[in-house]
Amino acid sequence: MSLLFKNAAILIRNGSGYEALEHAYLGVDGKRIDYIGTERPEKTYAEEKDYAGKLLLPGLVNAHTHTPMVFLRGIADGLPLDQWLNERVFPIEAKLTAEQIRVASYYAILELLASGVTSFTDMYFFPEETAQAVRDSGIKANLNKYILCFDPNQTVEESMIGPSIEFFEKYNDTCDGRLKVDFSIHAEYTNQPHIVKAYSEECKKHDAIMHIHLSESKSEVEKCMEKYRQTPVEWFESLGTFENPTCAAHVVWPMKNDLKILRKHDVSVMHNPSSNLMIGSGFAPIREMLDLGINVGLGTDGTASNNNLNMLEEMHLAAIVHNGYHLDATNILSSQVIDMATVNGAKLQGRTDTGVLETGKCADIIALDLDKIHLYPIFEYPSIITKSAQGSDVCMTMVDGKILYENGQYLTLDKEKIVQDFKTAVKEFYK
Amino acid sequence: MSLLFKNAAILIRNGSGYEALEHAYLGVDGKRIDYIGTERPEKTYAEEKDYAGKLLLPGLVNAHTHTPMVFLRGIADGLPLDQWLNERVFPIEAKLTAEQIRVASYYAILELLASGVTSFTDMYFFPEETAQAVRDSGIKANLNKYILCFDPNQTVEESMIGPSIEFFEKYNDTCDGRLKVDFSIHAEYTNQPHIVKAYSEECKKHDAIMHIHLSESKSEVEKCMEKYRQTPVEWFESLGTFENPTCAAHVVWPMKNDLKILRKHDVSVMHNPSSNLMIGSGFAPIREMLDLGINVGLGTDGTASNNNLNMLEEMHLAAIVHNGYHLDATNILSSQVIDMATVNGAKLQGRTDTGVLETGKCADIIALDLDKIHLYPIFEYPSIITKSAQGSDVCMTMVDGKILYENGQYLTLDKEKIVQDFKTAVKEFYK
Repeated sequence: MSLLFKNAAILIRNGSGYEALEHAYLGVDGKRIDYIGTERPEKTYAEEKDYAGKLLLPGLVNAHTHTPMVFLRGIADGLPLDQWLNERVFPIEAKLTAEQIRVASYYAILELLASGVTSFTDMYFFPEETAQAVRDSGIKANLNKYILCFDPNQTVEESMIGPSIEFFEKYNDTCDGRLKVDFSIHAEYTNQPHIVKAYSEECKKHDAIMHIHLSESKSEVEKCMEKYRQTPVEWFESLGTFENPTCAAHVVWPMKNDLKILRKHDVSVMHNPSSNLMIGSGFAPIREMLDLGINVGLGTDGTASNNNLNMLEEMHLAAIVHNGYHLDATNILSSQVIDMATVNGAKLQGRTDTGVLETGKCADIIALDLDKIHLYPIFEYPSIITKSAQGSDVCMTMVDGKILYENGQYLTLDKEKIVQDFKTAVKEFYK
Repeated sequence: MSLLFKNAAILIRNGSGYEALEHAYLGVDGKRIDYIGTERPEKTYAEEKDYAGKLLLPGLVNAHTHTPMVFLRGIADGLPLDQWLNERVFPIEAKLTAEQIRVASYYAILELLASGVTSFTDMYFFPEETAQAVRDSGIKANLNKYILCFDPNQTVEESMIGPSIEFFEKYNDTCDGRLKVDFSIHAEYTNQPHIVKAYSEECKKHDAIMHIHLSESKSEVEKCMEKYRQTPVEWFESLGTFENPTCAAHVVWPMKNDLKILRKHDVSVMHNPSSNLMIGSGFAPIREMLDLGINVGLGTDGTASNNNLNMLEEMHLAAIVHNGYHLDATNILSSQVIDMATVNGAKLQGRTDTGVLETGKCADIIALDLDKIHLYPIFEYPSIITKSAQGSDVCMTMVDGKILYENGQYLTLDKEKIVQDFKTAVKEFYK
């Protein structure tokens, strides 16, 4: 299959910023972009689409989420974090079944595709169910079966390491490379050192990426310091976790030399502004991370602390909240936010063949419909993308050269059935 | 004209919070709501609309904006405040003509109506032009011809007081009460004490509302302290401004007793989170204001510091950023944000006959289309409204019982012509 988008605005990287080619052409052949330019290519494509009035940009990477939590969307609004987690979220999660996770995964992917996400990094239980939805939908995802261990006497053999590796071996690099499997440690405060150490070694043996929650709240860091006389960053470092390519969600409360440690080990950070703000975690020092050269991606976190999977909203937050916090309109630039939401996310997923619109890269592309009142005039595309656009302005989502969503229609998923199944499951569960 | 909405969810105030009546009826007769209930009313209405799957809520009040700045949407992204204002915004504004303000006003109202705004409080030049757009569109607005004075030797007679009062006398309480005119002082740093004093007295004589910018940035407050040994709040108080019902935009940097002074004089605050964050002004102490009993409305500010007029986005920010800043998930509640965006805004506009869905109140009503992937499940409506919804979920906007916007269609405005005129004017201006 080959396809030519014509008359589109096309967002390309230009040094450390972005610019748009106007009235331009983008050719897709198979899974790859094979042409970008303002002249019509000589090659003939099987199909042409007139994308006048539309902006093509790289697909968004939701770098940290818990997609099946759509089952718990907004369930504990306005509660303090402890109550939010212990009284509302955990008791419900304890009851969720594989079947409920399955329908929730399909449902979440509807939301992701409609708001321009071409790839996501997830952390939730029953990932085999989410894997099915990834397979059927055509989206890309990095899944994992994360480890948790509250019992200090648990042995490595009794631990979740075995099932986590099994999941890796069964699913990694399947669905034609769309589905990757990471290793994952839920967090310092939900694990034991000897298990983390053994698991980190296994990760290395399997040449895998490690996905963790790290230094999300002040109290998490304080408790860790009390218990281990180490920050969570130091704790993971001492256990060998960072000897793997690691991506760490949140990092709102790095202390002392933590950021330098992360930089030294090339640990990527997944920034989740909605969640950090809503549940009162605070402001991750993103500018400091970027200045150190840390790779920062962007994620929505789960929908119980957000309450949606809208990456355009997340980009808006990332683009303005740090400016407010540091009293500096230049603290974070729109172009940096676009990096976070695209190429940086792809990098931390281990997907270096995507994240920018360039010939040779995977055709993971979305389109914004510029024919909206709130998207005119346009002086700089990055500003309009991060600060004017809504998730609903996405009118096309393509992964590996295949259109999965266009103008409200899903090409690979049966929306009506997925919505119906999800609603039935939700009603049954909460009745 | 009478109209019955049936099968809708209807958001009503319940104590200090909100709840939704499900499968309920809302009757509109003329300009007013004459029925709300879960039983079908006995009365027959001229028209019935089946609003199953839709949520009716009070129309949103954009309590502080500069609508014609759509002409400058996102023009100075990523610039420090001084450069933003002095090098980009002011030079352009100096060249804008009445005709450009006129087409921009119509265009901005398209954006407002489509995102659920039924009333706005504006501050910009050539307000006569904006008044035309208010008249033709059917929206409500509080406009003003604000005063500015940089010359300490200017006399009251030479000042802008005369034209400001003329505008008040010509336009106040016109368009069947939809158009109100306020008095307005741009800010402390753009005015002279003797002019402000004289104008504040005139405001009292005219029994009008005063609209000002107040303590937006740290440097504004510091310069005022240096110049007058008073905070901007103390300065306005000493000049008699607060002897009028006053609404003050921003108030990010109240010092010392400033908030108590505002409370003493019943000054309302218009909170503009997007703008305060984007251009690095900071975090207004909203919870402290609410605890003191200060009336706080919500506004988008102009589109050069936002970059849109999307009140749903503003509500999302107000609902989460203060939680993050104060490390407290309960700092601002969703229900408080809905108050800010509706009834509190109506109050500071001097419109006590609207802002809530209640029989007898003006039928200023909007609907959200709940048939969206990202709006299910719903555990609490306020959470879904503030943290899951997008501006594009608004599917109906009614003012004074008249539907102005429904399902993408404008009933009073010629969208195609307005868009065309605006684009032509923009292209001509920036060529």
